[in-house]
Amino acid sequence: MEQRARVLIDCDDEKGLVYKISKVFYDRGLNIDSNREFVDKEQGKFFMRTVVTGDFDIVELEKELNVITPKNAHLKVIEPKRKKIVILATKESHALGDILIRHEAGELDADIEAVIANHDLLEQLVRRFDIPFFHVPTEGLSREEHEDNVASLIDEQVFDYIVLAKYMRILTSSFVSRYPQQIVNIHHSFLPAFIGANPYKQAFRRGVKIIGATAHFVTDDLDEGPIIAQDVIPVNHRLEWRDMQRAGRDVEKIVLSRALSYVLNDRVFVHGNKTIVF
Amino acid sequence: MEQRARVLIDCDDEKGLVYKISKVFYDRGLNIDSNREFVDKEQGKFFMRTVVTGDFDIVELEKELNVITPKNAHLKVIEPKRKKIVILATKESHALGDILIRHEAGELDADIEAVIANHDLLEQLVRRFDIPFFHVPTEGLSREEHEDNVASLIDEQVFDYIVLAKYMRILTSSFVSRYPQQIVNIHHSFLPAFIGANPYKQAFRRGVKIIGATAHFVTDDLDEGPIIAQDVIPVNHRLEWRDMQRAGRDVEKIVLSRALSYVLNDRVFVHGNKTIVF
Amino acid sequence: MEQRARVLIDCDDEKGLVYKISKVFYDRGLNIDSNREFVDKEQGKFFMRTVVTGDFDIVELEKELNVITPKNAHLKVIEPKRKKIVILATKESHALGDILIRHEAGELDADIEAVIANHDLLEQLVRRFDIPFFHVPTEGLSREEHEDNVASLIDEQVFDYIVLAKYMRILTSSFVSRYPQQIVNIHHSFLPAFIGANPYKQAFRRGVKIIGATAHFVTDDLDEGPIIAQDVIPVNHRLEWRDMQRAGRDVEKIVLSRALSYVLNDRVFVHGNKTIVF
Amino acid sequence: MEQRARVLIDCDDEKGLVYKISKVFYDRGLNIDSNREFVDKEQGKFFMRTVVTGDFDIVELEKELNVITPKNAHLKVIEPKRKKIVILATKESHALGDILIRHEAGELDADIEAVIANHDLLEQLVRRFDIPFFHVPTEGLSREEHEDNVASLIDEQVFDYIVLAKYMRILTSSFVSRYPQQIVNIHHSFLPAFIGANPYKQAFRRGVKIIGATAHFVTDDLDEGPIIAQDVIPVNHRLEWRDMQRAGRDVEKIVLSRALSYVLNDRVFVHGNKTIVF
Repeated sequence: MEQRARVLIDCDDEKGLVYKISKVFYDRGLNIDSNREFVDKEQGKFFMRTVVTGDFDIVELEKELNVITPKNAHLKVIEPKRKKIVILATKESHALGDILIRHEAGELDADIEAVIANHDLLEQLVRRFDIPFFHVPTEGLSREEHEDNVASLIDEQVFDYIVLAKYMRILTSSFVSRYPQQIVNIHHSFLPAFIGANPYKQAFRRGVKIIGATAHFVTDDLDEGPIIAQDVIPVNHRLEWRDMQRAGRDVEKIVLSRALSYVLNDRVFVHGNKTIVF
Repeated sequence: MEQRARVLIDCDDEKGLVYKISKVFYDRGLNIDSNREFVDKEQGKFFMRTVVTGDFDIVELEKELNVITPKNAHLKVIEPKRKKIVILATKESHALGDILIRHEAGELDADIEAVIANHDLLEQLVRRFDIPFFHVPTEGLSREEHEDNVASLIDEQVFDYIVLAKYMRILTSSFVSRYPQQIVNIHHSFLPAFIGANPYKQAFRRGVKIIGATAHFVTDDLDEGPIIAQDVIPVNHRLEWRDMQRAGRDVEKIVLSRALSYVLNDRVFVHGNKTIVF
Repeated sequence: MEQRARVLIDCDDEKGLVYKISKVFYDRGLNIDSNREFVDKEQGKFFMRTVVTGDFDIVELEKELNVITPKNAHLKVIEPKRKKIVILATKESHALGDILIRHEAGELDADIEAVIANHDLLEQLVRRFDIPFFHVPTEGLSREEHEDNVASLIDEQVFDYIVLAKYMRILTSSFVSRYPQQIVNIHHSFLPAFIGANPYKQAFRRGVKIIGATAHFVTDDLDEGPIIAQDVIPVNHRLEWRDMQRAGRDVEKIVLSRALSYVLNDRVFVHGNKTIVF
Repeated sequence: MEQRARVLIDCDDEKGLVYKISKVFYDRGLNIDSNREFVDKEQGKFFMRTVVTGDFDIVELEKELNVITPKNAHLKVIEPKRKKIVILATKESHALGDILIRHEAGELDADIEAVIANHDLLEQLVRRFDIPFFHVPTEGLSREEHEDNVASLIDEQVFDYIVLAKYMRILTSSFVSRYPQQIVNIHHSFLPAFIGANPYKQAFRRGVKIIGATAHFVTDDLDEGPIIAQDVIPVNHRLEWRDMQRAGRDVEKIVLSRALSYVLNDRVFVHGNKTIVF
């Protein structure tokens, strides 16, 4: 039966890998629809993302590839099917709204299972799209208790990724480690970086000429982790901090949606603290 | 003897190409240093650029690859050696100067064999760098006669590419067809496009918010041909046309040098009126 | 009573204008909150946008300014109040959706009075936001008849601007001339420009390295008219035309919303076929 | 006698400033060639840059403006004449070369009085342009001793600005304080920022998707100080750190030259740790 699969390989580099892998495809009579490789020479790592079509069994193909790749290889053969996501938000609607509109247009490559927020401000917007909204208030709760409530709700969903669409809570290591390489975050980025409250006010006072945004997988530290996508827009002294914030929101939402598109199409490999985006 | 070669393949797409090609490398014990492929599905075309290292004979390798690739394949196995270029210029020094400085810094990946200009204004600049400068005046000559003089000078050089660094003469079909896929040009680009004299004045009057530059191979029409690189910078109403021109020059020189770097490293495939840049 | 007004002046340039205008503000004890001027020397035109605060009567202030500015001056003193817009759309939701989300977030600086479309595909999206949606089918109608139906609907609304959010119908001169400098359009822009069906397919085949969008006031020709905002994103040969279209949509929606923000805040002066954006 | 001057005013904001200043111009019959103002409301500061033409005495005009502006006003009325610069460099030629080429083309708006370097590598390049080159070796000298040698050489020149064109030495507070708001520096910028040796290697390992450059006035800390200009270029995982460095150099040189153009045309006001660039 004609079908299609994404073959994702991440392993130590060694001579003959491309040959051995393409031989498996060839021997089975598969078509290579697209193929991208990258070797990180410094680390001696090999990355490959191939889309194959033909008449094959996914489990069989994966087994066969396992035989000819190095021992520690991370190997996945997956059907290019729609993913499922859970979105965490707070009060700002730009990043969430951008995802909702793409979802409605059928351009998201994912179903939105639920939106969970620590405020109820976005409830109306989410309900307009007939998507489940859960308000998890923080009042009277420790950070850990609140996170437990959020995690309980998340774990009731079937999902592939958690998207932080301007979720303004700092996540604990314990929460992050539950969902390794599954949490995608967006945060504003400045040159230089600003620490502390209201970075836009600081950016205004510092007279920055560029405002950016970075989408990344969340690791222990909220605003660090492997970078998936980045972009910037030029600003100048005439923008007050609220104008800078508005401008920044445009970059944030576009960069998050771009990163999401990469992730949902299995185009992102994580290697240490960096990504390979095919 | 350990050596390195760039394998460039451009042929009809067919099943098993990657396998057959990588088998040749594997059987000879070659290392794949980098590998990039692209399939233009609409046209059914396959493109591949692989850098291999190992103990091999270039002519032998090319022969062997010829056997396993389709009949009409364009196949090149070349040593990554320094190219030679001839530069054509007129009066403006920004694009030429950028190339001269890179050349002096050892970052150009090419030797500049000669600079040929239809004015003598740039002679001093070129001579400062001890590079041969030839002034080919146009006075009293037909377009064809002038071009013949230029072509004679060019043909005395050993060269891989001709770089039009703001050469402001329109080339005849006859000239262009002497050097197929060997002439790289830079020209300003606007949204919308402007035809006729002084495009910067027109851009100013039209209030464009963006100014760009396009580097491309020259085909019959000077400002068309397969695009190698493009970039833009934002402008606004406050820039007078001379300011726009200045801003435009910055984009022009960077885009030309970027395109040149791609070309000199054999990273550009031309296919019809488009390029694949690996 | 403390109030705020935007003073917009567009007139022939002459000596002493800034002095005479600022004297009016000074004599009335007004504060200048922000002030931007521009002189188009080529055309001998003066443009000024000043935000003043203080205790004054708008009609009186305008009269007084009329006395000291040249005869043919275009002079407006207006309260910075929320504008009203009517949106025209077809099938694509990205530009419309971006405006709807900003509207919902209270960031649009305008009320959306109605969305009018020549297809009913976007009805559900618009209704989700409780905004009136009108489907004006084209079946069996001449261009003029359809436009008459649209114009009738538009004219039932109270509005300041008509926004073409990917409205894919070509407007007649007669329609356009009913709403001078009131229609804002967004269209994709390429280097070079492409004429005819499916520009994204043409862009793919031409191998462009940049995709852009232009927001402009509509004059007689749909894709011309004074440019309000432009932006681009880099693309490459790996994007198929549908990917280019997706990438293009991101630029289109951001550029349209940016242009809209300028227009709704009275920051755009039109002068011939160009804009001054303060 | 018809002449032209730049009027630069930086003072506390107060009502009537524009009126009073433009009255001075009006009473003297001066033409306003261009005029830009900015009020930093947070700080209560007023900035103005006006180019006036007419028959006037510069010293008289400055005196008269002093009378009607606030006590602590920084006021300058200057002829738009060519500035003089001294360049400090180390080994890299891209930023220096870009300035030399502009200088040769008559586009720099400044004379280069001297190039001073802590290595002799760039001597040949500088001498090609008949510009004095001074090698100030660091061997056997303390930082202070080396700086004293550099400062002695600088002080022998007549100059307006010192340009650090990739000068890789950290300057002491004592050196910096000798030349307040006179030293312009360029440095690479990343998101996130990297501290320590070889930031390009770190950027490569971190997988950044953007590389930038910041031009700024030097204050106590080499890579801080009021930002004059910034820009970025997109990069990806395929660029090795040397490719990132090459790409970064293109941004660095363009941003430095852009900042220099602003500074040499008296378009930059410094206010605390930020700039107003008119």
